Amino acid sequence: MEISSLQKARYAYTPKLPQMLRGGIAEINVLEGAETKSVADCEKIQALFPNTYGKKEIVFQKGQNTSTPKKQVVGVILSGGQAPGGHNVICGLYDALKSTNPENVLYGFKNGPIGLIEDNYVIFDDEYIDQYRNTGGFDIIGSGRTKLETNEQFAIVSEVCKKHGITAIVIIGGDDSNTNAAVLAEYFAANNTGVQVIGCPKTIDGDLKNEDIDCSFGFDTATKTYSEIIGNIERDANSAKKYWHFVKVMGRSASHVALECALKTQPNICLISEEVAAKKMSLSQIADYITDSVAERAARGMNFGVAVIPEGVVEFVPEFAILIAEINELLAGSKADAFNALPTWAEKYAFIENGLTKASMEVFAILPQGIQQQLFLERDPHGNVQVSLIESEKLFSALVADKLAARKKAGTYSGKFSPLHHFLGYEGRCAFPSNFDADYCYSLGYNAFMLIQYGYNGYLSKISNLSKPASEWVAGGMPITKMMNIERRHGEDKPVIKKALVELDGKPFKFFEANRETWAIETSYVYPGAIQYYGPSEVCDITTRTLALEKE
Amino acid sequence: MEISSLQKARYAYTPKLPQMLRGGIAEINVLEGAETKSVADCEKIQALFPNTYGKKEIVFQKGQNTSTPKKQVVGVILSGGQAPGGHNVICGLYDALKSTNPENVLYGFKNGPIGLIEDNYVIFDDEYIDQYRNTGGFDIIGSGRTKLETNEQFAIVSEVCKKHGITAIVIIGGDDSNTNAAVLAEYFAANNTGVQVIGCPKTIDGDLKNEDIDCSFGFDTATKTYSEIIGNIERDANSAKKYWHFVKVMGRSASHVALECALKTQPNICLISEEVAAKKMSLSQIADYITDSVAERAARGMNFGVAVIPEGVVEFVPEFAILIAEINELLAGSKADAFNALPTWAEKYAFIENGLTKASMEVFAILPQGIQQQLFLERDPHGNVQVSLIESEKLFSALVADKLAARKKAGTYSGKFSPLHHFLGYEGRCAFPSNFDADYCYSLGYNAFMLIQYGYNGYLSKISNLSKPASEWVAGGMPITKMMNIERRHGEDKPVIKKALVELDGKPFKFFEANRETWAIETSYVYPGAIQYYGPSEVCDITTRTLALEKE
Repeated sequence: MEISSLQKARYAYTPKLPQMLRGGIAEINVLEGAETKSVADCEKIQALFPNTYGKKEIVFQKGQNTSTPKKQVVGVILSGGQAPGGHNVICGLYDALKSTNPENVLYGFKNGPIGLIEDNYVIFDDEYIDQYRNTGGFDIIGSGRTKLETNEQFAIVSEVCKKHGITAIVIIGGDDSNTNAAVLAEYFAANNTGVQVIGCPKTIDGDLKNEDIDCSFGFDTATKTYSEIIGNIERDANSAKKYWHFVKVMGRSASHVALECALKTQPNICLISEEVAAKKMSLSQIADYITDSVAERAARGMNFGVAVIPEGVVEFVPEFAILIAEINELLAGSKADAFNALPTWAEKYAFIENGLTKASMEVFAILPQGIQQQLFLERDPHGNVQVSLIESEKLFSALVADKLAARKKAGTYSGKFSPLHHFLGYEGRCAFPSNFDADYCYSLGYNAFMLIQYGYNGYLSKISNLSKPASEWVAGGMPITKMMNIERRHGEDKPVIKKALVELDGKPFKFFEANRETWAIETSYVYPGAIQYYGPSEVCDITTRTLALEKE
Repeated sequence: MEISSLQKARYAYTPKLPQMLRGGIAEINVLEGAETKSVADCEKIQALFPNTYGKKEIVFQKGQNTSTPKKQVVGVILSGGQAPGGHNVICGLYDALKSTNPENVLYGFKNGPIGLIEDNYVIFDDEYIDQYRNTGGFDIIGSGRTKLETNEQFAIVSEVCKKHGITAIVIIGGDDSNTNAAVLAEYFAANNTGVQVIGCPKTIDGDLKNEDIDCSFGFDTATKTYSEIIGNIERDANSAKKYWHFVKVMGRSASHVALECALKTQPNICLISEEVAAKKMSLSQIADYITDSVAERAARGMNFGVAVIPEGVVEFVPEFAILIAEINELLAGSKADAFNALPTWAEKYAFIENGLTKASMEVFAILPQGIQQQLFLERDPHGNVQVSLIESEKLFSALVADKLAARKKAGTYSGKFSPLHHFLGYEGRCAFPSNFDADYCYSLGYNAFMLIQYGYNGYLSKISNLSKPASEWVAGGMPITKMMNIERRHGEDKPVIKKALVELDGKPFKFFEANRETWAIETSYVYPGAIQYYGPSEVCDITTRTLALEKE
């Protein structure tokens, strides 16, 4: 098998552990903190998690090992979308497990949670693990989106664990997967299976963070990769001086990715979905906001620019959310048949005009035809509009073009506007993890085993103080229930880990807000360049601007 | 002004010169070679270039300087599309010029050739130059696509040169710009202006190469950037195991970029336009070729893959080129009015069906509707189809989907096919130049000044032996006329530098051809990762696979 020279070189990288973990289990001791309670809805959460609620936060420290010697057989799964560093979580877990006792065994269940149900696994050994050290991707065992949430599933998982003598399961996933990890942990405790569950916080979206989790792994590498590309595009814009680039970036509902990229690259425009929602902005207002920058720059002789658009933004525009709801209603079930039978777009358009409220029709009418058709023609199996497929980068550039045409007519704009469109997503989920993510992930995995060895269940592997050098990082564990509250999901009250959106009074947003007017008009681009794994420490070891601002 | 930590670190990088240039002008001597003749059409080229034709190739060597001491005032322009390293050409030129004589002056004319016409310039000094060392982009003075080709323009340029006392002009550009450099050199010689012209070979497309030019600058960095992204996408495909990614890459007519990326990343499919043309492949045949890979992989349980599509491929499909010609004819001039007046797409479609030949209509009929509409609705100011806007990555995935549907019906395929689409272009033109491009470009600029100092005119700055370490590179110059032949362009015979397409009997293609069947069926992906500027030499100093194979 041919591998790249970088991959070969990265095999030789030794991830940095927090100082307190560097002596291995022999020198690790537990410092117990206070008992915890959930961030909200304490009684309801406690009622749902009677066996795992209220446990103590713990921190590891140097000291005499007091854990019970016991052969450990551990299973690990990767859950959900890829994030750089997943392989290193498994490598850290494997190294801790094997160095604690060479008889310990690590099972990797394949293709996500389904692997636990199907009993589809690999048993790791050195040769297997060594191929994946410090590499990107989740291809070591694959990932998947099946959810483990029913008692039937849990019973099957229990059987699988029993069969292999598995003592603990490590779930590497996002907020939903860790919520499910907590539920599984409760099930195991309630049924006295003796199997522990430990979660690890993964997601490039950056929305799994709170007072206990500095950041999820993968966010650093993904935003560095997107920022490399955005910076390159900015430099191209500033060289060719004739295009406006509309760059949509992944990140689901939250705008952490867009904001971090903006802090790194200083584009002319960056929309923040949470602000759009808070200010109840209309599509027209957003378009005006972008158009002001385009027009002002044109007046200064700069018919070029870069606008960053978070993936989820249109769902945060109140009038657009209403429009989507109306369309879903208009075409629900058999009502779609009459619509589908209409032979021409003109007739379909009349049908729509007739079916929408006046307010929604006004929103619909300003959309470019491509988007209009997409809303009606590309629906999911339930007949719902596929919001995530909406090419919002094209939507906004089309709205801006309309605004500019009107201003040209009014004599208030005389520039040129040539938009280009990009979507950055898959490029960043499987990059070689940055040194930060390589270190953080390895530490998360290593630490997860220490939590197992000390008998914890329903805990998240917690590595904090991440804005400092790795030697100063703090390792420990936090009951997952501590991060939970009750939210309404699909018409039901559910215990879930609270999703972190961009806080409009947080320092990262405040810094952005204080600078964006300048960035909108001037050309203040910063070009981060490609992720470096070698070289000066300030080039290859520093993590996100978001974290630096949050912890400053 | 805020700059990134990588940019700061790159300022400290010292580009490597060929050994023979390291002592500067004092130790540089000229070794004259034989007189040259053009690669074809010698008589015609000689007739067009009576004053600059047939000059000698020269190579520099260590020795006593014999050039005439003279204050040099040099102008430089960047022409055409961005390519990583352009700034370093100017930095090398500046350093050579200033170290030869601090009284020498370097003018940078702004926004491409138009700067010479408009007399729009900057005079470089250390402070200005130092901001751009080892950075990407052409923003140091901007670039542009105006062509310098008429005697009226040349007369204006002569006046501008006279006004500033300019003794030489360095033109950094692709094949067309260097062709124009040769014509300008001839004009200057014929009119005894005493102004010299030196060209430097730039283009990320890689199509400016021949027995004298190992490769154009920028190709290395751009293909490394695209390969980083393709590798990341491959790793995502191999982790998620549910998408087929269709990745179009820039490169204009030639497929050098696609081929180099394929050699680096080993995708399942890479189309090569030159092969499509040579085999006179139809769209259906190409789609079958891709579909075979999709189906075979699906049969092996792999419903994912990556296909690389060169930007220009559809123009090389004979039946598609005919279709485009027919459409251009069908809607030429006022004929478009009747078409535009038709209110619905169905009526427009009938008009088209009526106007195309049967053969072309068969091609048209298999296109997805989005592409059909694009061909008719998005035409340039002359009414012509905008071939470069055709989303060929979507075209091929749609054709493959059709083929798979037919095979499913026939019972020969039972997989899932979810395509995703990408276009890689602007991401790679302004990246920080790789160490190779930083060194090569600096050497090209440095060497250009040596050619000026030795009085050469109509020469290309030539650095060769590039597959070896920089110390072994060979510096010299080649008359541009030597690379020219006569081609038919826009109905006229024109002297031009021969464009280099991928040679189907060349070693890079042969290597690809020998491996692609395996790559199509197995998962042989290679993940190059981000360009590294630091670290082990095999990670940060090696140039393209294409060059290595050509020179092996």
